[in-house]
Amino acid sequence: MKRIYFDHIAATPVHPDVLAAMLPYFQDRFGNAQSLHADGQAVQEPLAEARERVARLINATEAEIVFVSCGSEANNLAVKGLALAQRPKGTHLVLSAIEHTSVLNAAKSLEKTGFSTTLVPVDGEGRVDPAAVAAAIKPETVLVSVQLANSEIGTIEPVAEIARAARAKHVAVHTDAVAAAGNIPVDVRALGVDALSLAGDQFYGPKGSGALFVRKGVKVVPLIDGGIQEGGKRGGTENIPAIIGLGLAAEIARLKMDERRAAAAKLRDKIIAELPSRIAYARVTGPAFERLPHHASFVIPFVEGEAMLLSLDMKGIAASSGSACTSKSLKASHVHLAMGLDHATAQGSIVFSLIESATEADVDHLLDVFPPIVERLRSMSPLYTEFLKENRR
Amino acid sequence: MKRIYFDHIAATPVHPDVLAAMLPYFQDRFGNAQSLHADGQAVQEPLAEARERVARLINATEAEIVFVSCGSEANNLAVKGLALAQRPKGTHLVLSAIEHTSVLNAAKSLEKTGFSTTLVPVDGEGRVDPAAVAAAIKPETVLVSVQLANSEIGTIEPVAEIARAARAKHVAVHTDAVAAAGNIPVDVRALGVDALSLAGDQFYGPKGSGALFVRKGVKVVPLIDGGIQEGGKRGGTENIPAIIGLGLAAEIARLKMDERRAAAAKLRDKIIAELPSRIAYARVTGPAFERLPHHASFVIPFVEGEAMLLSLDMKGIAASSGSACTSKSLKASHVHLAMGLDHATAQGSIVFSLIESATEADVDHLLDVFPPIVERLRSMSPLYTEFLKENRR
Repeated sequence: MKRIYFDHIAATPVHPDVLAAMLPYFQDRFGNAQSLHADGQAVQEPLAEARERVARLINATEAEIVFVSCGSEANNLAVKGLALAQRPKGTHLVLSAIEHTSVLNAAKSLEKTGFSTTLVPVDGEGRVDPAAVAAAIKPETVLVSVQLANSEIGTIEPVAEIARAARAKHVAVHTDAVAAAGNIPVDVRALGVDALSLAGDQFYGPKGSGALFVRKGVKVVPLIDGGIQEGGKRGGTENIPAIIGLGLAAEIARLKMDERRAAAAKLRDKIIAELPSRIAYARVTGPAFERLPHHASFVIPFVEGEAMLLSLDMKGIAASSGSACTSKSLKASHVHLAMGLDHATAQGSIVFSLIESATEADVDHLLDVFPPIVERLRSMSPLYTEFLKENRR
Repeated sequence: MKRIYFDHIAATPVHPDVLAAMLPYFQDRFGNAQSLHADGQAVQEPLAEARERVARLINATEAEIVFVSCGSEANNLAVKGLALAQRPKGTHLVLSAIEHTSVLNAAKSLEKTGFSTTLVPVDGEGRVDPAAVAAAIKPETVLVSVQLANSEIGTIEPVAEIARAARAKHVAVHTDAVAAAGNIPVDVRALGVDALSLAGDQFYGPKGSGALFVRKGVKVVPLIDGGIQEGGKRGGTENIPAIIGLGLAAEIARLKMDERRAAAAKLRDKIIAELPSRIAYARVTGPAFERLPHHASFVIPFVEGEAMLLSLDMKGIAASSGSACTSKSLKASHVHLAMGLDHATAQGSIVFSLIESATEADVDHLLDVFPPIVERLRSMSPLYTEFLKENRR
């Protein structure tokens, strides 16, 4: 059975060219970038090139790129690092209610040291209102953090407007662009943010790669203290293969972005257009159109997300019901609850996120296979039987 | 010109079997370990096996292993995580004066939040006296952190005795075993420590791999908050290829440890025995015998470490003058100063650390090539000319 992978948001495979570019750095060019000898010097230029490539993807400068080990580290470094660096000024944070757990839990960790957080609500499509962010800012607010795109519902947030509102009040702005960067155009200048997180495994780069953009002049307290690596913002021996891979993945993403987006959006639109007509009461979560190009998400009432995932998996289709980071906790997602869905409906969440190799035939297969799965699962639901009885009356 | 790599402490090349074991996890088995579908499940068993292998290397249990991105992250997680988890109990730390910068700077970062640190001195061979550690412990001490081996001078510390002294006073103990683990036998039970750091790139595993042992029942505040990965102690998508690589490197290190140690120690002993007889006033740093098996370190008066490194490099030999993490800062090492060396002598530091492929011919070549280099550099030193004049009187 051919397997179909519709779980881009959990991880993408490494692009063949990216892996090929990484390979020499495990054995032949394995030197420590901090070493003064030839083996250390041999990795300087590739390291600089990777930094330039990542910077170019988001319109930053090389000196503004801090390489880290993953998106969650980038988010923790941003939230804790920017907040702690400004502690004398204040101890209040403004986040959206649908941030990734790495942002929300970083804020919770800061709360234990005297910070407080305001969570700005979202509308029914998961959109944050810039005016609500502005209204949440207090004199003691030191950081606004709103994601650029949500991995569970595909919503793209109005970060430029949010940043404008925050800057008018002299508050630093971070955006978690882990789900967005490499997949949609991201320009740190146009966004006007002070910090931006990205991760390689969201655009065909390796796991263990990520970066935090920190705007020139913005102070950040390191998460990992140590040597003089990354301008003193992140200690630890540079993970050269991962950095090389991230750099090339960023370069490919930049060059192929339009093509990849168009191809993904076409398939996404087909899923979004046709699935609800084949599955009664299925509802798109997030906006129908202005969303991540590779992302189609739904709630299917009277069915549990996990049951759908496992049934699809048995048919060779990998999907997810939300963020991989919390998938095993099997709780209703905070994102869905913040959008106003009730617990029962939120349980029926399913996300199809397309990778580059996805074809229209894959989508057609999904559209054929999925409705009978839902029908079978619903037939086992007493709630659904009850509901049908009531509606037939 | 054949290049000879004598800089194990900066980085080791990845073992061919380790790279081969990692390769399938970039493209074929690229799933997120948190995903419920087959692509996520496919990495569960290899992940568990890697954890078991790392645990076995240090006589820990699987549940006590927290995978992280490097040795510096492990050290930061240990020092900050253990200290912050015990904050209600007290805010005092005891470290040795020769800890790695990632430990020292993690403590400095804690000092900004109200902690204080006592640095225990070392003797002329860089050894920490367990009685001095015991004497430094106050009622408000919450953590003792002393490294298992020092990467600049090769000294192996009496961590078991230190831990015994600390435990008698109910103080948690961390040891930075980054330079030791995988190279000498490490047994967390015999050592009696609560936490222990290790890094893959010190024993032929990949960069970007590391682990913190946290003894069962010991609380640690995460550095990277996020999802439920690593028992809630380290958020972020698991870097599966790096973890697989670390696991196999640990397994190979365990199986080949005696053989590797014996081979390295033979070459090390030759360098330590012969170099001082060929270079006047050259002095071993650290103990002559009870030291890391792959590690020979010296101070060469009247010569600067950097000049020696660059001259050796031109002859095809890679060495270091201390920790790679601070090599570019070109300051006299805090390790050498703590041992009682004066600034000028400490500048003449040189470390030859052997990797598996080193041969006796390589060592003979070094012993031939290095003395003339020193002679030439000294001939340019006015201080040395002065010194010779005085000594001939």
